[in-house]
Amino acid sequence: MNINDKEFVKEVTSQAVDFSQWYLDIVLKTEMMDYAPIKGCMAIRPYGYAIWENIQQLLDRRIKETGHKNAYFPLFIPESLLEKEAEHVEGFAPEVALVTRGGNEELAEKLVVRPTSEAIICEMYARWIQSWRDLPLLINQWCNVVRWEKNTRPFLRTSEFLWQEGHTVHATEEEAQEETLKMLGVYQDLLESELAIPVIPGQKTEKEKFAGALRTYTIEALMADGKALQAGTSHNLGQHFAKVFEIKFQDKDDELKYAWTTSWGVSTRLIGALIMVHGDDRGLKLPPRVAPIQVVIVPIIGKKSKDEVLRRANEVAAGLRSINIRVELDDREGYSPGWKFNQWEMKGVPLRLEIGPRDLENKGVTAVRRDTGEKSFLLDQDLSAQLPLLLQNIQDSLFEHALKFREQKTYRPQDYGDFKEALDEKKGFMLAHWCGDARCEEEIKAGTKATIRCIPFDSDPKDKGPCLFCQKEGRPVYFARSY
Amino acid sequence: MNINDKEFVKEVTSQAVDFSQWYLDIVLKTEMMDYAPIKGCMAIRPYGYAIWENIQQLLDRRIKETGHKNAYFPLFIPESLLEKEAEHVEGFAPEVALVTRGGNEELAEKLVVRPTSEAIICEMYARWIQSWRDLPLLINQWCNVVRWEKNTRPFLRTSEFLWQEGHTVHATEEEAQEETLKMLGVYQDLLESELAIPVIPGQKTEKEKFAGALRTYTIEALMADGKALQAGTSHNLGQHFAKVFEIKFQDKDDELKYAWTTSWGVSTRLIGALIMVHGDDRGLKLPPRVAPIQVVIVPIIGKKSKDEVLRRANEVAAGLRSINIRVELDDREGYSPGWKFNQWEMKGVPLRLEIGPRDLENKGVTAVRRDTGEKSFLLDQDLSAQLPLLLQNIQDSLFEHALKFREQKTYRPQDYGDFKEALDEKKGFMLAHWCGDARCEEEIKAGTKATIRCIPFDSDPKDKGPCLFCQKEGRPVYFARSY
Repeated sequence: MNINDKEFVKEVTSQAVDFSQWYLDIVLKTEMMDYAPIKGCMAIRPYGYAIWENIQQLLDRRIKETGHKNAYFPLFIPESLLEKEAEHVEGFAPEVALVTRGGNEELAEKLVVRPTSEAIICEMYARWIQSWRDLPLLINQWCNVVRWEKNTRPFLRTSEFLWQEGHTVHATEEEAQEETLKMLGVYQDLLESELAIPVIPGQKTEKEKFAGALRTYTIEALMADGKALQAGTSHNLGQHFAKVFEIKFQDKDDELKYAWTTSWGVSTRLIGALIMVHGDDRGLKLPPRVAPIQVVIVPIIGKKSKDEVLRRANEVAAGLRSINIRVELDDREGYSPGWKFNQWEMKGVPLRLEIGPRDLENKGVTAVRRDTGEKSFLLDQDLSAQLPLLLQNIQDSLFEHALKFREQKTYRPQDYGDFKEALDEKKGFMLAHWCGDARCEEEIKAGTKATIRCIPFDSDPKDKGPCLFCQKEGRPVYFARSY
Repeated sequence: MNINDKEFVKEVTSQAVDFSQWYLDIVLKTEMMDYAPIKGCMAIRPYGYAIWENIQQLLDRRIKETGHKNAYFPLFIPESLLEKEAEHVEGFAPEVALVTRGGNEELAEKLVVRPTSEAIICEMYARWIQSWRDLPLLINQWCNVVRWEKNTRPFLRTSEFLWQEGHTVHATEEEAQEETLKMLGVYQDLLESELAIPVIPGQKTEKEKFAGALRTYTIEALMADGKALQAGTSHNLGQHFAKVFEIKFQDKDDELKYAWTTSWGVSTRLIGALIMVHGDDRGLKLPPRVAPIQVVIVPIIGKKSKDEVLRRANEVAAGLRSINIRVELDDREGYSPGWKFNQWEMKGVPLRLEIGPRDLENKGVTAVRRDTGEKSFLLDQDLSAQLPLLLQNIQDSLFEHALKFREQKTYRPQDYGDFKEALDEKKGFMLAHWCGDARCEEEIKAGTKATIRCIPFDSDPKDKGPCLFCQKEGRPVYFARSY
């Protein structure tokens, strides 16, 4: 490492010194975002937005394959509509932005900038649904939402963020429940197959469920600092919204019935998860499936070889593009190869190809993995067969690495004392028994800042034990401090 | 036509009776949109939104191919930022929605819901640009914007609408001008190649240019009622925004210089254009490239043939899907084929395939074009070769038809009296000479409600003549009444 390189890395705080500052350094230095002059709002710069576009594309395909169609509903919700569902308004009213003037006039009714769209969408659905023939109604929208948050953090919690929100209507309770779990499964698959982030799927407690839901399901991921992140949620809304918005349908038996609704969403928060699950002190490590640039080519130019090296670098780039690999050729002048290596490492590009005079001689390229630092020499003739495999291997390794980390960081505390100590010392998920009483849940939160992340689907029904707080018999749940 | 069919068509007002009502009938009956309970806002339903998604995909590809990257900037603009550019604020302030409360508190500074994003984007660009190495900066965003309009109309003019807005920064005036015209060209290509809408590209007059621009360019399309529609604009913003937002860069000669900026956009208004250019009394006519459903298959089920017909219909659908044709198999029970024909015609599906017992016998399908009503019989073995050609033929015909219509509706008035009469009687574009004086332009607008749509690029420099209003020598410009 030359001096130049050290300077470069010095700009980023080490994770061990201050994880939170490391995160802020990374999102700024990699040009994923910048702070905007509006409280809690950010500009998502091209490098960050390209990750979002990749996530969108991978999820949108899954949303459509499961029979949903996209639509778009208004940004504004009349205050009276938001107020219809009692728990819903209680949950969201404190953090809404309100439009009170339009076209130089005071508005007769204030408009809420959507914090989520159940209210306006259910109002429309009530008009569109008359008969069982209109069901199920399976609609999704990609949009921006606004929640006036007190404490904000780029990507993780911002006053405005981008997301998709699915809103579906069903004839029966069973179908609504099936849909709710199906979409949670879609999210789990997205996170694990594409973002290389292992998640724990499960149900939220009554206290932690969505404002207005009957039941909320979640996928929970573990960040590198041992804190949990709620990465996606899917809500069975029961008939709560159908009843207040009058979503009724004539069933096959000719009876007029209230419908059952669901909603589910993931947001730009996933970008935060990608950073915090995979990143290290040198910067981002992006899984190939969502990386804006999967392969960067850095030509190593000697005194005589410039033209030949650049010609070969361009050839390799074109070859990779033709097999749909997202490739960038960094032929900028005035930057040393070492400086470029560091920059692209910080940006988390999964694979770097170096092409220099010696590589030309040997009819190949030198490949360096971002995740392991491993170097290998690939013959030109093998590139188009080897690179897709290598990228898949990096994708798989990132997942395995994150899974192993989570397993190491999942602890089964002996008792409440052990739980508190482990939270401070070991951090991570605490898999402990809980009796089901919200008072124990609240006491634990008040005493430790840890919340129940979820009641996992996959727990052994025979796994019973004393509640962490009250010692009554309980089932295992995941506790953690979280974002 | 059976009684059922007549009933169906009766629901839509005839264009000849009331074009405006025809339009509203179509957008509602085809389920492209529905009115929302917020002044001037609409919900874009899946059928309308799918058209927007197709337009987005076709345009986004072009935007990226010309070197631009997508990003996302905040929805909110502090009032003081919007006020920086004098003409800009004068143009937009009267129609903004204002957020005055957030999180239950009165905001210290009111926030404008973006009507367009020059102000917030230039504020960010000023931080990102230091050197000539940072230029050109070529960024686009897809988002929603809000303009508190007095008179609204679905898709054409709504309080909230969806669009893309490109914002670029350049080192020189020449590059900014080149970019401005390049993106107008991209829009023209999108409209003509994909939406089958011929447009007239040209420059806006000083009076009609964008608030804050140095020069505005436009593509103007002619609707079936003879009114013009501004379908896309591209602005050379000169150094107007760079100067007030302090976008400066160190040039190669080491001097600190103000940059040059451009912006350009098209919106969901294009869906309105599609409807009004191609539609007829039976409903929409969608060009295949943007049609959510390109081919609909209607099985004609006899008494004995049900299983066989449905099996074949499914086979044909699968075959077309495998060659990337967007196909819908309408196997709903309880609807007559005639009713289905009418519904899909109203929805503008370019091609209908009928499969009945006789078609099975003859080893083929009956194809009916939406644009001409023409029927043909296609052998099964020719389907995958013939259908793409047939769809291309429909696409081309729609364009040719629209171009011919526009040519017929472009009139060269003899004098102001003839101009006024032609506007009322013939409608359409009036290609007439104008001296360049804004007073003549205003007098003509006051007297006829016609505006100068553009000063066309392609006019013959030798084509000089007396100004329509004052008789001084002028050049030919396009006048029309417009949306």
